[in-house]
This record gives sequence, structure tokens and C-alpha cells, in this order.
Amino acid sequence: MTKRVAVIGAGPSGLAQLRAFQSAAEKGAEVPEVVCFERQADWGGIWNYTWRTGTDEHGEPVHCSMYRYLWSNGPKECLEFADYTFEEHFGRPIASYPPRAVLWDYIKGRVEKAGVRSWIRFSSPVRWVQYNEDKDNFSVTVQNLVDGHSYTEEFDYVIVASGHFSTPNVPDFEGLATFNGRVMHAHDFRDALEFKDKDLLIIGTSYSAEDIGSQCYKYGARSITCSHRTAPMGFHWPDNWEEVPLLTRVEKNTCHFKDGSSREIDAIIMCTGYLHHFPFLPDELRLQTGNRLWPLDLYKGIFWEANPKLMYLGMQDQFYTFNMFDAQAWYARDAILGRITLPDQEEMVRHSQVWRAREEKLEDDEQMIWFQGDYVQDLINETDYPSFDVEGVNKTFMEWEHHKHEDIMTFRNNAYRSLMTGNMQPAHHTPWLEAMDDSMESYLASS
Amino acid sequence: MTKRVAVIGAGPSGLAQLRAFQSAAEKGAEVPEVVCFERQADWGGIWNYTWRTGTDEHGEPVHCSMYRYLWSNGPKECLEFADYTFEEHFGRPIASYPPRAVLWDYIKGRVEKAGVRSWIRFSSPVRWVQYNEDKDNFSVTVQNLVDGHSYTEEFDYVIVASGHFSTPNVPDFEGLATFNGRVMHAHDFRDALEFKDKDLLIIGTSYSAEDIGSQCYKYGARSITCSHRTAPMGFHWPDNWEEVPLLTRVEKNTCHFKDGSSREIDAIIMCTGYLHHFPFLPDELRLQTGNRLWPLDLYKGIFWEANPKLMYLGMQDQFYTFNMFDAQAWYARDAILGRITLPDQEEMVRHSQVWRAREEKLEDDEQMIWFQGDYVQDLINETDYPSFDVEGVNKTFMEWEHHKHEDIMTFRNNAYRSLMTGNMQPAHHTPWLEAMDDSMESYLASS
Repeated sequence: MTKRVAVIGAGPSGLAQLRAFQSAAEKGAEVPEVVCFERQADWGGIWNYTWRTGTDEHGEPVHCSMYRYLWSNGPKECLEFADYTFEEHFGRPIASYPPRAVLWDYIKGRVEKAGVRSWIRFSSPVRWVQYNEDKDNFSVTVQNLVDGHSYTEEFDYVIVASGHFSTPNVPDFEGLATFNGRVMHAHDFRDALEFKDKDLLIIGTSYSAEDIGSQCYKYGARSITCSHRTAPMGFHWPDNWEEVPLLTRVEKNTCHFKDGSSREIDAIIMCTGYLHHFPFLPDELRLQTGNRLWPLDLYKGIFWEANPKLMYLGMQDQFYTFNMFDAQAWYARDAILGRITLPDQEEMVRHSQVWRAREEKLEDDEQMIWFQGDYVQDLINETDYPSFDVEGVNKTFMEWEHHKHEDIMTFRNNAYRSLMTGNMQPAHHTPWLEAMDDSMESYLASS
Repeated sequence: MTKRVAVIGAGPSGLAQLRAFQSAAEKGAEVPEVVCFERQADWGGIWNYTWRTGTDEHGEPVHCSMYRYLWSNGPKECLEFADYTFEEHFGRPIASYPPRAVLWDYIKGRVEKAGVRSWIRFSSPVRWVQYNEDKDNFSVTVQNLVDGHSYTEEFDYVIVASGHFSTPNVPDFEGLATFNGRVMHAHDFRDALEFKDKDLLIIGTSYSAEDIGSQCYKYGARSITCSHRTAPMGFHWPDNWEEVPLLTRVEKNTCHFKDGSSREIDAIIMCTGYLHHFPFLPDELRLQTGNRLWPLDLYKGIFWEANPKLMYLGMQDQFYTFNMFDAQAWYARDAILGRITLPDQEEMVRHSQVWRAREEKLEDDEQMIWFQGDYVQDLINETDYPSFDVEGVNKTFMEWEHHKHEDIMTFRNNAYRSLMTGNMQPAHHTPWLEAMDDSMESYLASS
């Protein structure tokens, strides 16, 4: 009987999995039946923008964490698919930091070409997954939001690709209930113009803090105060931008910080990260981890060691993104197809611990990038995913870091060489700080 | 063996159910084991205020739809518990439109006195409920958010008391994605001061539209525009408040309406109602209804006709609230205790259709109030819930409607007679429009 594979989520990771199976089928392999369950009405995961926040039209949590005017915060050369280049999609080299709509178009281009849309059941959140000891398979309970119907089907494999940048981590601070303005998480940020002429407090030092702060600066916030727990971000910020220690207390519109200073604030944006959240998984199948480069319990960063017929994609903290998900998806596929034999559980655990021990010794971004590059290389060595210049990608990441530290408001004006095609990409026609229109049309316009 | 009852939710309805069983036990009855599963860390349901919006600290949807400065929008005399009066709780008569904190305190007072807190498992969302044909019982799968542990237990009865004012209904309008400000649902409204000096668009004509608009007026919004689909609310609004037809299109900050007019708007608040949302229930157990006075499929508005060991509390549209939930909870309890025998399914359906036919003929608020009063009377006639003057409550509702139409900004300055104690309640020490502090201390202060 044909094996059945459930893929949970049709974002970059889930779509990589569909493309992996389709690419094997295209080359003549017999592949299992793959059913992808996607909560949203369209594919693309967090790249599928909505103005909505909170819950969607069906009452389900909104998946999207993106905002208007979001441009890639890293060079597209570092996330390029090895089997489908930007040049193939757009017909020519394009600038290196595309806005969201451009990247969404690119993600869609590959899977449209592959013809896998019919494998996906949209508007279909997974409610519960259960492992059936007796049958050595999984029951997956799903609800169709369009007609309300819920049903359960059995699968031999389950691949969790539901992402981990959708459920906000929102800490409490003393007095927040007295604050007389908007208190929100980056997940709900949509339009920087809401904060024009406002005094803004950003909590956190992550990519969200950097980028949402920069957005608000670009679109006219009066001042930006960034509060850090451990260390400031330390970029060269504009004059109306200041970094302060941790928020200790809020009293109406006055925010107090650990160094005894205080500020009058109009809105608070928490850029405090996301939770790995799997409300559809029972204990014995549920990954429990913080956001880090080597979560435990996943052999090769993919296989649930206690039951490797359950897999996870993209659960690591990420420098590498799309092409790392590809490397994982191809590897997962080959394990399912029997092309790769997994070791026993003891060996899987031992193997993970070696990577984890190395991860724990990493001291800076540079080392972390090389670590994740090695991981990607390790995976692609064993499958037919097109080999690419991982070292070259690592070096592009280094350049990116360098450009950010040179000037956080201009780094997106740089361009890099594609590691897939070898072609130098053009600089964008307008400096990022002056480019107010984030549409694909505007980005692709020749000047 | 002791029967087991699962109650889902520890808000006003769920707590009514706990109190109903405790009150029977107090009088010597043998009662089943009652386990109440509450998603939040404390009791009170939507009355349990949080500054949070979206998802909570565990990544679960925030239940609270309340906001700072919320005062009861109806007289407390219409929702008073027959077995625990306001005068018993506060030691004296108090004014008729208390702010949220006062009502929360009152709700808690009764169940603290009853000593049922230990029946509740907090931070415990129900993930899935399944009926077991072979055992004629239910499997309830729950996750403990504190330790992450999920587990399944069996129950003879399940009572769904999870509310229906927590999952927003959020329609789409053309061009919302281009709007340059906050777009939100009433569910996420927290502090009217966020909208001081703003031009505000409110969509809808429900209680939320009335009250959130009035709040924003009170706390200094520059203008309030209310957009209706069918008919304007028609109250005597202040000068900076206007009612317009339905929003047809948004273009950046310009909102266009069906009559061809347009306005420049800073923020959009959708007061567009809530969904009955039960993501933990399979098709065959899930109530599917709009918000109306007589949803079908529930015998006596309580019992799931296809399987009456499943019950629902408080799922009706509501004039009556707390004391109606009580009437339902006492009735549900007596069915479980065998004091009331339910008819067969055919008779239940027939009975519901009679009520539904009457509901469909109701023409105005007055008729609806009498309808719901009759329903409450019908339930309390058959249990030992303390009888009370339902007709008197109906008449108080009429007075309330009259006061609102007289002046929507002053109706809360009126006072009414308790139908439970017979005592006239005092007017509040400060007119609502001038009372900026919504704390319990301020409300209970003698002047």
C-alpha cells in the first residue's frame, strides 16, 4: 500500500518538503502520497501578508508576523534556492535585499513550476496528532475551516513544518496595565506610519527590534528608545534613537529603566521573540526548546529521536533559511524513501550531543554562521539537492554583518554575488532609507 | 462509581455550574466529581482583565475582551445572583452601573464563599473532546500550560461554558491593507487614551460600538464616525460624533462610505461581533450558530439534542446574563442528578422549534427581553434556584433602554431597585462622563 506523509504547514519549510518529493517523482522515483495541511487560505507561511492581527476570519490565530515595508534583513544571496535561482524566476539579476512581496513571489514561483498546489489542503488547521502504537502510524485530526467539518486520517509519517516565528513570547512588566497607549508585540506590527510623531519604546535586541525600530525611524517616529536586558545592539543609530537598560516599571506613560532613568512613551513594542508552539501535539511528540541553533531531541536537526517517523523542519534559530529548509526536506524525503538509513536511537542521541556540545561553545555570529553552514553542508552531501558554495554563503553573511555595523541605515544599499549563478547582482535603484514604496513593481522597476 | 463532570471554562457560566453543584452538596445531595478546566490562570472569564492582546504568555489566544474604564452597560439589578446579592457582597446598596473591577469582585465573592476553587484546573486549555460510543462517555484532552504536560481523562458529562465573546468576527473591507494606521477589533481594545485627539472610525452598531465610541469620546477622541450596515444606532450623540452608512473602501487614510462620502481616519475599530468558536470540539458535538436568542440544537437552550450528556451554558445572545447562566446551570445540574428527566430526542427538537418560531417573530428589544425573561422563568420554575421577580427585571431593562435613548452619555447616572432585596440603590457619587477613575476603591468611595 502507498505510504502516506502528512506535512503540517505550507510555508517555506513545508513547501520545500513538497518540492523535494516532487523532484524525486520527476526523476522517476515512486513517492508516497503527500498531504500538506495549511491553516491559511494561501501558501507562503509568514510571507503571506495580512493586515489582520490577533485572530483571522475563522477565529484562528493569525500566522503572519510580517509588516508593510518589510525588506529582507539579509542578502537574498544567502537564502537562494539551489534548484531555482532568483535569475530563473525574475529573468535577470535583481538587487540583494528585496521587500516581502518580491520574496513571496519567488517562493511561490518554484512550487508553481513544480505543480504541487493540489497536494495542499488550505484553511485546514491540524487540531491533534496521535501516535497509534498498534499500527505504527499517526492519526491526524484536522478541521476544514470553510465548511467547519473535522475529520481524522492516518499517516505513516508526520512532518511538522509549522514554523516558530508566529506565536509571540510576551513577558510581563510591572505596571503595564496602567500604560495609556498601545502595548504590543512585534507579531502585531503592521504599519510604521501608525507611529509617526510618536515616542516609541522597543523592548529587545533581536532582528525585530533592529528592523521595526529602523522602519519607525524611516517613517517618522519622533524618538526611539530601545531597552535591552543584557547588552545594547551597538549599531550607529540616528540622533533620535537611544539604547537604555531593561524596563523595570511602567506608570501610566512613564517608563522607568534599570539605570534609574525614565522616559515619556506613547507606544511600547515588544520585540521579545517567539515561542515554539505546537498546541496540536501531545507531550511525547512535542519539541520543547528555546530558539537556538541546535535544539536537542532532533537527529540531524530533523528526526524526533523518540519516534523518527515524526520529523521537524526549520526549528533551529536561523542564519540560513530557505536553502537550509531545502537541505532538511531533501534529507527527510530520502529517509522516507529508504535511500538513507537512520541509526538507532542511542546513536542518534549521541550524534546530536556532539553537535550540541559544539553549539554551546560558539562565541559570536561569525562562529554561528560557520556552524550552521557546516550543518547545511552535512545534509546536502547525502542527497541529490544541488550542491552549492556553502563557504561562499558564509562569507556573504560576513559581508552583511560588516555592512550592518558600518551603517545600519544603509546596509541594504549593498549588492552581492549569487553563489548559485556566479553573477554579481545590481545595487537597488533607490537607497533603502528613501524607498518608501515596498511593492514588487517598484522594486523591479529599472530605475 | 462516582460520575464525572467536565466543565470547560471558569467564567460566569462555568462558575455558576460549580456553585450549582456545591449548593446541592451543601444541602446533602450526593454530587458527581466536577472538574473545571480553565485556560487562564485565574477565574472570572472575560471579567478577568489583562493588558495583553493576541496571545498570552503561553501562546494561547487571549480570552479577555474587556478594556480599562469599562463600566457595566446595563443595570447590575438585571444580572444580580438570586442566591448572593450585591448587598450581601458589599455590605450595603451600591450604585447601578459598576465598573469591571467591581463586578469581577462580586462574581468571585460567591464562589469564594462556596469554596469551589479547588475544583478548577487553571492554565489548562482543553485541546480535544471525543465521544466514546462504546463506553457512553467522553475523552477530554487537556494541556497543562505550566508544565507543558498533556493528558486525557474520561468524563460522563461535558459542559461547555467557554463563552462566545472572545473570538472576534473580523470582516474584510477593500483596501484595508493600504490603511496607514491601526486596524483592530473591539476584542483588542484596551485603553481609550490611545485614541485621544484621533479621528476614529467605528464599524458596527452593537454594544461594543456604542460603548467603545462613548469611551473614546469621554477620553478625548477628536471625532468619532460610526459606520452601519443596516441602520444607525440613533442615539443623541455629541457634536463630534456622526453615523454614516457602510464602509465600502479604504485608500490609505481615506475611508469611503456607501453614500459616496469619505473621511480621513486615524484608526479603525471593528465592533463587528464575535464567533461561537470551539476548536476543541469535533463536528458531531459542536454548536454552530450565530449570536441569537434561540440557537437551534440545544434543548432548553442547554442540552445538545444529538447527545444530551453534552451541555452548553450561556450560548444565547444576552439581555439576561449572570442569573440566566445560573438558571441554566441549576437545570443542567438537576438533569445530571436525575431530578429532571429529559424527553427523547424527537420531543427535544420539537420543543426547541416552538421557542425558535417565537424567537423569529420578535420585533424589538422590548419583545426580546420578555422572551428571554420567559425562558429564565421556565428554567427556574423547575429547580431550587431561588425564585426572583423576573417581571421586575424585565421592567428594569425597559427603564434602562429608556434612559439610554434619553441620553446615551448620562444613562449610567441612574439608579434602580434591587429585585432580590427590594432596596433602592443609590446614584453614583460622580456622573459617568466625569468619573475618569474606574477602580473599585473609587467606585465604592462614599463621595
